[in-house]
Amino acid sequence: MSDDIPLFTLLDLVGTFAFAISGALAARQKNLDLFGVIAIAWLVACGGGIIRDLSIGAVPPAGLADWRYLLLALTASILAIVAYPVLRRLAHPVQMFDALGLGFFAVFGAHKSLVFGHNAQVAIALGVVSAVGGGVLRDVLLNRLPLILRKEIYASAALLAACVQVAGESLGLPMAWVSWTGITLCFSLRYLAMRRGWNLPRIGGTER
Amino acid sequence: MSDDIPLFTLLDLVGTFAFAISGALAARQKNLDLFGVIAIAWLVACGGGIIRDLSIGAVPPAGLADWRYLLLALTASILAIVAYPVLRRLAHPVQMFDALGLGFFAVFGAHKSLVFGHNAQVAIALGVVSAVGGGVLRDVLLNRLPLILRKEIYASAALLAACVQVAGESLGLPMAWVSWTGITLCFSLRYLAMRRGWNLPRIGGTER
Amino acid sequence: MSDDIPLFTLLDLVGTFAFAISGALAARQKNLDLFGVIAIAWLVACGGGIIRDLSIGAVPPAGLADWRYLLLALTASILAIVAYPVLRRLAHPVQMFDALGLGFFAVFGAHKSLVFGHNAQVAIALGVVSAVGGGVLRDVLLNRLPLILRKEIYASAALLAACVQVAGESLGLPMAWVSWTGITLCFSLRYLAMRRGWNLPRIGGTER
Repeated sequence: MSDDIPLFTLLDLVGTFAFAISGALAARQKNLDLFGVIAIAWLVACGGGIIRDLSIGAVPPAGLADWRYLLLALTASILAIVAYPVLRRLAHPVQMFDALGLGFFAVFGAHKSLVFGHNAQVAIALGVVSAVGGGVLRDVLLNRLPLILRKEIYASAALLAACVQVAGESLGLPMAWVSWTGITLCFSLRYLAMRRGWNLPRIGGTER
Repeated sequence: MSDDIPLFTLLDLVGTFAFAISGALAARQKNLDLFGVIAIAWLVACGGGIIRDLSIGAVPPAGLADWRYLLLALTASILAIVAYPVLRRLAHPVQMFDALGLGFFAVFGAHKSLVFGHNAQVAIALGVVSAVGGGVLRDVLLNRLPLILRKEIYASAALLAACVQVAGESLGLPMAWVSWTGITLCFSLRYLAMRRGWNLPRIGGTER
Repeated sequence: MSDDIPLFTLLDLVGTFAFAISGALAARQKNLDLFGVIAIAWLVACGGGIIRDLSIGAVPPAGLADWRYLLLALTASILAIVAYPVLRRLAHPVQMFDALGLGFFAVFGAHKSLVFGHNAQVAIALGVVSAVGGGVLRDVLLNRLPLILRKEIYASAALLAACVQVAGESLGLPMAWVSWTGITLCFSLRYLAMRRGWNLPRIGGTER
């Protein structure tokens, strides 16, 4: 990170970009038109943050009020289209970029809620909500059962990152260390769960 | 109800718990993992209330700002898992607890909107929205056609309860009587509709 | 338009009515009960506006606070049921009324955001969001892939209308001319795209 871009602006923009790529890739796999790809990319990138901003009273939500988010969604869409042959060689490319965005947004969401004067619980809850919100919207719009409800460790990883960030800020630890620790833990946990097939205990069966 | 818990806090918490159980049962039937069950339980319990709170300007929404809601969702999830053999003997257990929550939330939602200084129409509309919102989110996430759009009397029961509450408060009748009347009417109407197969007139056919 | 009804109230109500008819027709085709038809009609008519109002801080949202919207949804539902034999003779009746509502809401949404003191970007973004929001909710609830993500020019038409309105207001051009130009352009573009099968370039295939 450079000295010119404040830490949290950077976290927000990187998270937005990672989610936008995950959305654009998912939309591309569904055979949508150019606008559909951009729309899904934007919605995945900004959906969680819009819910967060409405909940903390940050009106109008940044995802609507700031051209940079739309630009990031556009860039991510073009990248997802142009670089598709490269990206598809990744295992589960949608989930990979989703995992990246998850950590950045959990940390940034928790931080922004604290900045707006809310308490630790609100900050943790909204960190998780802004991290998982975009992905839930993506899956609902594309008629898939949301990733968060399916098998692997997902929201738990976002919860971990949000808790690290809130605990770190409460204890007054150095911001950059705290944030990058939260992001790294979240991504590693999610990545390992994906790679090794770690799951939380399954409940119930298919019986009615 | 005891004298220690104010009436409306009680209504809110009971409604939350009933919705959380209905959500946890629906999630369990879909073979979700532990987190999925808790997430759906929490969302069904708090989704309607969050939409209500954003609409009346109660920021941050109680469902995000108060640990008790998350605790209730957790407890309901554990209960739904542990006591599943008992609960499944009920006819339509998901819909039964949903019907309970419906009445409590319609009354509490209408009351909270009045407390925030909104007029009778807003109170009735938001009573219905907070009562049906969680169930709609549950069905959308689990890829089912929302209960509210399917066959039986549903939102009409919530509408009745919200109207009773708003009328009662406007006339200055004793709160507890008004609220319990609304809840009883709503649950009875919904329960009878479920049992006896009462429906509103069906419109249209399957033709395109 | 008469001198008694201010221009923008008229635009809002006509757009609401057009969306309500599109929703009621879609619900009727899905064999929903009377309440389901009214609920979908109301949600399509008011959903986009509620998201817009929450985003600009217009609390409580007009769609919840004003009886006229519910009345329009009711009237549209009855009309969709009674006049169904006439309406179904239109090609794609749901999409036809949707296209009408799209233009009116894009213009009204952009205007309302400017009135609430937001800048050009927010106004354009919220014009599009209020125009497409109701239709997205309709398709999500009825378990269809949203129109906006499917083949034809859709949100682009709303974007055009919102840009015309924002540009016109910034330049101080006569309001009525600007608004009707935006609406006409949006409807014509959407209608021609529908009739002639115009599409944006399709991206990607069905491969995973």
